[in-house]
Amino acid sequence: MTHESDLSALKDHLRTIDDLRRAASVLHWDQATYMPPGGAAARGRQLALLGRVAHERLTCSDVGRLLDALTPWAEAQGADSDVAALIRVTRRDYERATRVPAAFVQRLNEHTAASYHVWERARPANDFAAVRPLLETTVLLSRELAAFHPGYAHPYDALIDLAEDGMTVAAVRTLFAELRAGLVPLIDAIRARPEADDRCLRGNFPEAAQQAFGERVIRAFGYDFARGRQDKTAHPFMTKLGRGDVRITTRFRGDDLSDGLFSTLHEAGHAMYEQGIDDALDGTPLFRGTTSGVHESQSRLWENLVGRSLPFWHHWFAPLKAAFPGALAGTDVDTFYRAINKVAPSLVRTDADEVTYNLHVMLRFDLELAMLEGTIKVADLPEAWRARVRSDLGVAPPDDRDGALQDVHWYAGIVGGAFQSYTLGNIMSAQFFAAARRDLGDLDAQIGAGEFGPLRAWLTERIYRHGRKFTAPETVRRATGEPMSIGPYLAYLNTKYGALYGL
Amino acid sequence: MTHESDLSALKDHLRTIDDLRRAASVLHWDQATYMPPGGAAARGRQLALLGRVAHERLTCSDVGRLLDALTPWAEAQGADSDVAALIRVTRRDYERATRVPAAFVQRLNEHTAASYHVWERARPANDFAAVRPLLETTVLLSRELAAFHPGYAHPYDALIDLAEDGMTVAAVRTLFAELRAGLVPLIDAIRARPEADDRCLRGNFPEAAQQAFGERVIRAFGYDFARGRQDKTAHPFMTKLGRGDVRITTRFRGDDLSDGLFSTLHEAGHAMYEQGIDDALDGTPLFRGTTSGVHESQSRLWENLVGRSLPFWHHWFAPLKAAFPGALAGTDVDTFYRAINKVAPSLVRTDADEVTYNLHVMLRFDLELAMLEGTIKVADLPEAWRARVRSDLGVAPPDDRDGALQDVHWYAGIVGGAFQSYTLGNIMSAQFFAAARRDLGDLDAQIGAGEFGPLRAWLTERIYRHGRKFTAPETVRRATGEPMSIGPYLAYLNTKYGALYGL
Repeated sequence: MTHESDLSALKDHLRTIDDLRRAASVLHWDQATYMPPGGAAARGRQLALLGRVAHERLTCSDVGRLLDALTPWAEAQGADSDVAALIRVTRRDYERATRVPAAFVQRLNEHTAASYHVWERARPANDFAAVRPLLETTVLLSRELAAFHPGYAHPYDALIDLAEDGMTVAAVRTLFAELRAGLVPLIDAIRARPEADDRCLRGNFPEAAQQAFGERVIRAFGYDFARGRQDKTAHPFMTKLGRGDVRITTRFRGDDLSDGLFSTLHEAGHAMYEQGIDDALDGTPLFRGTTSGVHESQSRLWENLVGRSLPFWHHWFAPLKAAFPGALAGTDVDTFYRAINKVAPSLVRTDADEVTYNLHVMLRFDLELAMLEGTIKVADLPEAWRARVRSDLGVAPPDDRDGALQDVHWYAGIVGGAFQSYTLGNIMSAQFFAAARRDLGDLDAQIGAGEFGPLRAWLTERIYRHGRKFTAPETVRRATGEPMSIGPYLAYLNTKYGALYGL
Repeated sequence: MTHESDLSALKDHLRTIDDLRRAASVLHWDQATYMPPGGAAARGRQLALLGRVAHERLTCSDVGRLLDALTPWAEAQGADSDVAALIRVTRRDYERATRVPAAFVQRLNEHTAASYHVWERARPANDFAAVRPLLETTVLLSRELAAFHPGYAHPYDALIDLAEDGMTVAAVRTLFAELRAGLVPLIDAIRARPEADDRCLRGNFPEAAQQAFGERVIRAFGYDFARGRQDKTAHPFMTKLGRGDVRITTRFRGDDLSDGLFSTLHEAGHAMYEQGIDDALDGTPLFRGTTSGVHESQSRLWENLVGRSLPFWHHWFAPLKAAFPGALAGTDVDTFYRAINKVAPSLVRTDADEVTYNLHVMLRFDLELAMLEGTIKVADLPEAWRARVRSDLGVAPPDDRDGALQDVHWYAGIVGGAFQSYTLGNIMSAQFFAAARRDLGDLDAQIGAGEFGPLRAWLTERIYRHGRKFTAPETVRRATGEPMSIGPYLAYLNTKYGALYGL
C-alpha cells in the first residue's frame, strides 16, 4: 500500500513536469512555424520560465525521497518491468539535474541564447570573428558542465552520456575508426567511377504537389495525422506536444525535389517512433524515444533504408511522376534511383549522401573533443576545419559559412555530445533493418508492394513501444539479438553502392 | 530605495505570472487553430496546470506584503500615475483571487470543461436535456462564486464586476431600460418599411480572395502584421501571446461575404487596442484592455461605426468589386451599403444586425439574472427563452439549437457577468466615435479617403495606451469628457437607419 501510494505520488509529480515540458514544446513549435517577428523577446522569456519551473519540480527533495523509498520494491519487480525502468531512468534524470546548480543552468541557457542570436547573423555574413568569443565561453561552460558529473573514465563521457545514455568517448572512437576503415575504400572506389547524373531532381516542382506527395507516402508508412500534423519551417524537426499530438515540420524548394521529400520521410520516422510508444508510459520520463542515436536510427531507416531503396521506388515512382508530369517526363525509375543516391563529397553535412555523411560527423566529433581537451584553440578552428575537410573529403570550403559555421549545435548549445548520435543512428538503422529483414521474410517485396505494415509492426514491437525503458546498447541487443556493430551498416553500403556504381 | 526594490520585486513576480498566462494563451491559440484531434486530452491538462501555477503565484503572501508596503508610496504619486494604477489593479486581482479557495477554482474549471464538452455535442443535436443537469450545477457554482465576494449591493454585482470593473446590476438595468425605450420605436418604424435586399452578399466568394481583401483593409486600419498574424478557426477570437504578438482568427464561408469580412474587422479592432498599449506597462496586469465592455467598444467601432459606414465603402467598394468581379457585377455601392446594414429580427445573436442585436443581449441578461435569483428554473429556460424571443423580436425559435443552446457562455463558464459587456461595448463605441468626430474635424471625409491614421491616433491617445489603468466609466469620462450615456448610440442608430429606411 505504501509503495502504491508513493508510486502514485511520484507519477503525479512527474506528470506535471512532463506537462510543463510539453507546454514548452508548443511554444517552441509555434516559434519555429507561425510566430510573428515581434513575438521573439517574450517567447524567449516564456520558454526560460517554463524550463525553470520544470527544473525546480524535478530537483525538489520529494523526488529523491520517493525514489529512495521505491527503489528496492521496484527492483524486485525485475529490471524489464515498467516500474523498475521508471525508477531507474527517473533517478538518472534526477541525479543529473541535482548535480548542476540552478544558477549554472540559467547562465548556460542565457549564454547559448545570446550565442545563437549572434550565430544567426554571423553564418550568412561568413563572420567567424563575431562568434569566436562566444564559442570560447561555450567551451569553458561545457568543461564546467562535464565537471559537475565526476566518475567517468574520460571527462567528456559525461557530455556524451547526456545525449546517449551508456555511450563513452572510447566506444565512439573505436566504432568510428572501424567505420572509417570500411568507408574510405568504398568512397575511393566510387570516385574512380563516372559521376551519377542527378539533373532530374532539379526543375519545376510546385510546393503544394510536393507536400501532397510527401503526406501520401508518410500516411502509407503509418504516420497518424489524427495524432499529428505537418507544417513548414526553416530547419525541419519533430516535436511531441502531448500523447496524441506528435508533429513534424518540413521545408520545400520549388526547384528541387529531394530536400523536401527526404526531410518529410526523415521527420516522419522520428514521429512514428514517438507515436508508437506504449500509452501506459504517458506522463513519465519513459514516454519518449530512448536516445538521440536510436531516434536518428528511426528517421534514417525510413528516409534511407526504405525511402532511398529501389523496391520503394518501384512502387512510388509512378505516383511521383503523375504528381510532376512535366519535370519528370523522360525520367525512368533507374535514373531517378541513381540520382537520389548520387555519392559526391560535399561541404555541407545536411546535403551529404549516405556514404560520405559519416566523414562529416567524424570530423566534428574529433574537432569538438580537441576543443574540449584544449589541443585546438577556438581561434584556430576555421583553419583546422578546412584542413580536415580537404584531407577527408577532398574538397575545400571557400568560406566559414559552409565550414566551421555551418551547424547550429556549437552555437546554440554545448560543445560535445551531439554529433556522434547521427552516425550511431546510421549504424543502428542498418542493424535494425537487417534484423527486420531476417524476421519478416521478403521485406523488399513488401516495400515494393507499398506494404509497410509488417515493418512498422516489427519496429513498434522491438523498439517503439518501449520508449525510454532501455539504453541504446540494450535496445540493439533486444531488437536484433546482437551487440551494436558496424557490420550490417557496411554490408548495406557496400551492397547498395557496389550495385549502383558497378564496383 | 526600499520602495524601489519592493516595486522591482513585485514587478518581477507579476512578470512571471504574465509569462505563464501568455504561455497558456499560446496553448489556447494552438488548440483553436492547428491542434490535431489527438491533442485534446493533454492540452486540457497542460492548460489547467499553467492556470494553477499562475494562480499559486498570484495568491502567494509575498504579493500581499509587497502591496501593503507599496500602497501609501504609490498613492502619493497621484491616482493617474502608472505605479498607483499598478498597485490599485494588482490589489484588486490579488484580493479577488485570494477570496476564492483554490479547491473551488479547480472544481469550477473541471465542471465547466465537462459542461463544454457536453454542450459541443448537445447544441447540434438540439438536446437541451443533456446539458440541463450541468447547467443546474453551473448556476449553483455561480452563486457560490458570488458569495465569496461579499459587500456588493446586489449579490450578482460581484459576477459583473469580475468582467466589468465598477459596473453593477442596477446600473446595467437602468442603461438597458433607457436603451430599450429608444430601440423599440426604431425597430417598429423599420419593420413598417420594405425589406432591404441583401442578395448581393450571397454568391461565389473564394476564400483566398476574402482573406486577401480583409488583410488589406485591416493593414490600412493599422493592425501590425509584424506583431501579429491571422489564422482560421471555428469561433473567431483575438489573443495576446506577448508584447509583440497579438493574433486574430477568423473564418470564411465561400458562399457568403459578410461573415468573414466583418469578423476580420471586429477582431482587428480588439487587436489594435492590445497593440496600442504603452510598452511601459508590459509584464504587469495593466498590459491589457481594461474591461470586456471597453474591448468590445473597440471591436464594434472598427467593425460597425467604420466598417459598415457609407464613407468607408465609398473608398473600399471599388477594390472589393475588383476582388470579386463575378459575384459583385451589377451591384453598386448604395445597394451594397443597404445590404450590409439590413435590419431584420433573427434568432441568432451573432448574426443580428446593429439595431436588433441589443435585444438579444437584454434577454440573456434578464434570463441569467432570473436563474441566479431562482425565479426561473433551468428546466424552464428553453420555454422562457422562446417566449422572450417571440415577444421581443417577433420571431419564434423552432428549436433550442438556435434558442437557449446557441451561446457557449453558460456552458463553458459561469452564469452571469458576460453578456452585458456586448451592449456596453455598443454604447461606448458610439460615444467614443462621436467624441473622435468632434475632435478630428471631418472624420467621414478621412474615412472616405481611406485615411485611418487620425482616428487610430485619437483612440491610442485616449484609450489604447492606458491599458487597464482606468475602469470603463473612468475611460469614458477621460476619452469623451462626459459620463457614459446612451445618447450618442441612439443618435447614431436613428440617423443612420433613418436615412437607410427613409424614416
